[in-house]
Amino acid sequence: MTKAIRFHRTGDADVLQIDDVVVNPPAAGEVQIEVKALGLNRAEIMYRTGQYVIDPVFPAQLGYEAAGIVRAVGGGVSDFAVGDVVSVIPAFSFADYGMYAEVVNAPVHAVVKHPTNLSFEEAAASWMMFVTAYGALVEYGNLQAGQTVLIPAASSSVGLAAIQVANMLGAIPVALTRTSAKRQALLDAGAKYVIATQEQDLVAEVAKITAGKGARIAFDPVGGPEAAKLLKSLSNEGLFFQYGALDERDIPVPVMEILGKHLTLRGYELFEITTHPERLANAKAFVSKGLAEGKLKPVIDKVFPFSEISDAHRHMESNVQIGKIVVSVN
Amino acid sequence: MTKAIRFHRTGDADVLQIDDVVVNPPAAGEVQIEVKALGLNRAEIMYRTGQYVIDPVFPAQLGYEAAGIVRAVGGGVSDFAVGDVVSVIPAFSFADYGMYAEVVNAPVHAVVKHPTNLSFEEAAASWMMFVTAYGALVEYGNLQAGQTVLIPAASSSVGLAAIQVANMLGAIPVALTRTSAKRQALLDAGAKYVIATQEQDLVAEVAKITAGKGARIAFDPVGGPEAAKLLKSLSNEGLFFQYGALDERDIPVPVMEILGKHLTLRGYELFEITTHPERLANAKAFVSKGLAEGKLKPVIDKVFPFSEISDAHRHMESNVQIGKIVVSVN
Repeated sequence: MTKAIRFHRTGDADVLQIDDVVVNPPAAGEVQIEVKALGLNRAEIMYRTGQYVIDPVFPAQLGYEAAGIVRAVGGGVSDFAVGDVVSVIPAFSFADYGMYAEVVNAPVHAVVKHPTNLSFEEAAASWMMFVTAYGALVEYGNLQAGQTVLIPAASSSVGLAAIQVANMLGAIPVALTRTSAKRQALLDAGAKYVIATQEQDLVAEVAKITAGKGARIAFDPVGGPEAAKLLKSLSNEGLFFQYGALDERDIPVPVMEILGKHLTLRGYELFEITTHPERLANAKAFVSKGLAEGKLKPVIDKVFPFSEISDAHRHMESNVQIGKIVVSVN
Repeated sequence: MTKAIRFHRTGDADVLQIDDVVVNPPAAGEVQIEVKALGLNRAEIMYRTGQYVIDPVFPAQLGYEAAGIVRAVGGGVSDFAVGDVVSVIPAFSFADYGMYAEVVNAPVHAVVKHPTNLSFEEAAASWMMFVTAYGALVEYGNLQAGQTVLIPAASSSVGLAAIQVANMLGAIPVALTRTSAKRQALLDAGAKYVIATQEQDLVAEVAKITAGKGARIAFDPVGGPEAAKLLKSLSNEGLFFQYGALDERDIPVPVMEILGKHLTLRGYELFEITTHPERLANAKAFVSKGLAEGKLKPVIDKVFPFSEISDAHRHMESNVQIGKIVVSVN
């Protein structure tokens, strides 16, 4: 028996409960992990509240991100051995796997040996944020040194990761945040510039920063009417990646802007990278290198104990965090 | 002296006049052509009325598309010789060159020896329409056999060209037109399906045609609120190319659609292909092959004499044409 966090009905953070469950031996293509830390993910809140792309079947397991020690491997698994220190990349469905437990099975393609300079908490926090940013900025965006990238919601874990990925490439990360409250924190986190969008004229500020040229990439989890300003801030052949829908209203795309500058607007999500073997291998290599060299360093907001998972969810819902919320196991 | 069509003020079609002008010998990198036929282009109307991306300096020359016989070549030109039968691809600015004349100089990169099975009228009509369609569907869209492409304004010259390019690839061209009036003409022109957008439910019809999967590409010169329906008709990883702005209103992009299906919306224009040497070479090769094999055959709406250029422009403005309007010279 092992302890697993599950929910038996959708609802607020209190529906999460710790159940005693039996973990099967790892099947072929699976790795069994003794979990030491979990990374929390907004998708888990959506799933818990019944607003995710798949509906839970009760009792519902959940959890995309974890780090721990290999306890057993299933048939056909040759890249991992008992005792390996590993972490888990979101590359599966909650219908099949959930990482919120003391012992879990994970599909081998989602498992990675992280650099040894990372703590379990850091490893659990790293993959979602850095692979999400990597996929848009590097795999699809081909961001180059000297190019400018606009990062709305910059104090989110993925926003902070995008700042670091941009710096690793020698590009110029511009953090967007609503007010000046987080300005210094974002500069400290590596942003070359910070624009407070409720206090400053975004288009004019970006023009100033880029000497009138505009930014190469906007990497936006918000969408909605405000996104039109991001499109207006892009350079010729600029790329707009939308990776979330915090504002569910339509984006009013200015036609002459798109046409005159040959802009591209693209919906993007992490799973495009993590469910594609070659892209995932490239992502693992890039992020591992950055983590090992210390150029990528996950920003952890707060660590909660396993027993306080409901508090951890509530903390994420409060939107006051800067960086990743982590849960320590054992 | 040669006769050239120019305008001395912006305005309606009557501002076009035939002037006697001196044509300089071709400079280095130029080819001098005795023009036999011209292709007309909506950009020329916009330029004439002062609504184009560049403003005319009077007296203003114009004209992107022509076919004729080489009369002389400038320094450094080795690919063409006097007597060659050639045509001209839009790959320059009206500030520098205009093809509306009996004798013109053209930059060598814009000149191509077209297949000998084409008349001058056909050659003048071919390049803009086929290269525009090729660029989106092949160069950027990578359209494959069996995939569906939605073609609004299908009876325009570029729309008809897109139908042929799709068929050349073994893809499935779906012609979109407002009413059923042009249905049979579009089927005759090679469309596999025709959807009358004012009479039928676009999203439902596309779902029916694609067995619920959606179309791979939409290739749209319109934009505006209607374009949102095209986005809803696309498959996962679908591509929306906007190559015109007949409707200048914003496109209300449905956020969850873009995000859930990883859609790409991209502004596109011909000059992305024709001002890029490698892309242009690929385009010339593809279109030449199609023209030589008869798989691409320009649809010519009507041929006007040189002296009736104002009537030709008025005909284009009437929007009744199906296919290309051509002007015969001499």
